Amino acid sequence: MKILTQSLPNSSAAYLQGYLRENTDSSVTYPTVIIVPGGSYTHIPERQAEDLALAWVARGYQAFFLRYSFISEKTPLLPNPVIELAQSVAAIHAHATTWHVDLRRLAVAGFSVGGHITALFNDWWSEADFNQQAHTTPEQLKVQAVILGYPVISPDLGFPTDAATLATWSTTPKKIAADQHVTAANAPTFIWVTANDPLVPVQNALAYAQASLTHGVDTELHVFHNGPHGLALANSVTAWKPGTDLPHVAHWLDLATEWLQDLK
Amino acid sequence: MKILTQSLPNSSAAYLQGYLRENTDSSVTYPTVIIVPGGSYTHIPERQAEDLALAWVARGYQAFFLRYSFISEKTPLLPNPVIELAQSVAAIHAHATTWHVDLRRLAVAGFSVGGHITALFNDWWSEADFNQQAHTTPEQLKVQAVILGYPVISPDLGFPTDAATLATWSTTPKKIAADQHVTAANAPTFIWVTANDPLVPVQNALAYAQASLTHGVDTELHVFHNGPHGLALANSVTAWKPGTDLPHVAHWLDLATEWLQDLK
Repeated sequence: MKILTQSLPNSSAAYLQGYLRENTDSSVTYPTVIIVPGGSYTHIPERQAEDLALAWVARGYQAFFLRYSFISEKTPLLPNPVIELAQSVAAIHAHATTWHVDLRRLAVAGFSVGGHITALFNDWWSEADFNQQAHTTPEQLKVQAVILGYPVISPDLGFPTDAATLATWSTTPKKIAADQHVTAANAPTFIWVTANDPLVPVQNALAYAQASLTHGVDTELHVFHNGPHGLALANSVTAWKPGTDLPHVAHWLDLATEWLQDLK
Repeated sequence: MKILTQSLPNSSAAYLQGYLRENTDSSVTYPTVIIVPGGSYTHIPERQAEDLALAWVARGYQAFFLRYSFISEKTPLLPNPVIELAQSVAAIHAHATTWHVDLRRLAVAGFSVGGHITALFNDWWSEADFNQQAHTTPEQLKVQAVILGYPVISPDLGFPTDAATLATWSTTPKKIAADQHVTAANAPTFIWVTANDPLVPVQNALAYAQASLTHGVDTELHVFHNGPHGLALANSVTAWKPGTDLPHVAHWLDLATEWLQDLK
């Protein structure tokens, strides 16, 4: 395996970090996942992002994580991180052969606000306006599937809780309500969350799942009954306080990987 | 193991069938599950009901299935099967010692219309009117948890599709809309379904999960992306046509059993 860092156009701080198995046969490709970590749009938990990427590497995937822009770097922040995700997907399309990526099996997995970025990307990838902003084409942004872990979806659903924070996210809150922009063009979507998430209400995940089902998108939803926000792998690798190593919730990764393999 | 059949009061046709491990030590008790099978209120798939019961027996449970009344026996049918389920729970309370039942770990698992019966029982178990009809007390109806597989929840949610069938179910359709009668007294509730169920729309499961979450009930929900109605164990044991042996969906049983063990 090699670790590489790919900078993104027009972005001083954002980059894509890859964990890639090497192969002398250029025709060999692997399923691939891009991790979009959480961090409240104020930071990136890079070690957790790497642990999530490595969990897929261990399952035979090429894996990346996106270090996107923060509020302190670009305010209001959105849609900048969504554009950076689009440019990351386009970069992987461009380097598919050298990075041994199977583009038919390319997925994006976003967590918390990373789930917000990923859900908005899933809604916008085929839109002309968005592609113009990102300097991409829809063909360059195609992914097979999207995974959302305890995602932020809409400011109407309980996160953030104050107007001042929301103002740093966007001046057009309706535009970043991801459940309101789902179309039949969305990629198959897998969502997991805990019912009693005390920070980002479960209603975020439910609203996006409902929108996805309503538009006939291939949808899978797992609401585990108990666990705090930000569980990542929900195992001992990413446990960050007592009560975050939860074997029941940790099934999400096998369920998600199996679902990816199960997609037509 | 012994197999026993327990008749129910005031019911010519309904009975409770038990699959019980024996033990000479009367202080030994086991977790217990009551299966309420589907069958569109027109019949009971008894072999499938037995396979579901035996799946829990294999996990160390005492297991029962309920053969409840059909439309052809009592019309309009409801609330008769719900009363029969209440009388079954009361019978298990009454025989807990001889049947080696741990009453702190007694669950009901209903499938399809059996999920409808179970959801209504979950809504009504503590109500005075219902207990008067069933000749029970709330104390006799306490269960630890409820499991709903691809449940019918409300006539407003796409099943049954015709007024004539609904009229055989009930003359008061609002009363049998199970999502409308959830309270904080409901037992912890686990729900699973497939997103593209062509017979009973996924909206049934979502509406009940939403009501359960809204009332602060311990709730777990698993929406698997693909599979027909009536999957039972979703494995080779209960497969009844091509496309019903689905290893991905079959995880529901381990998830449910783990959730039961995880309950406080």
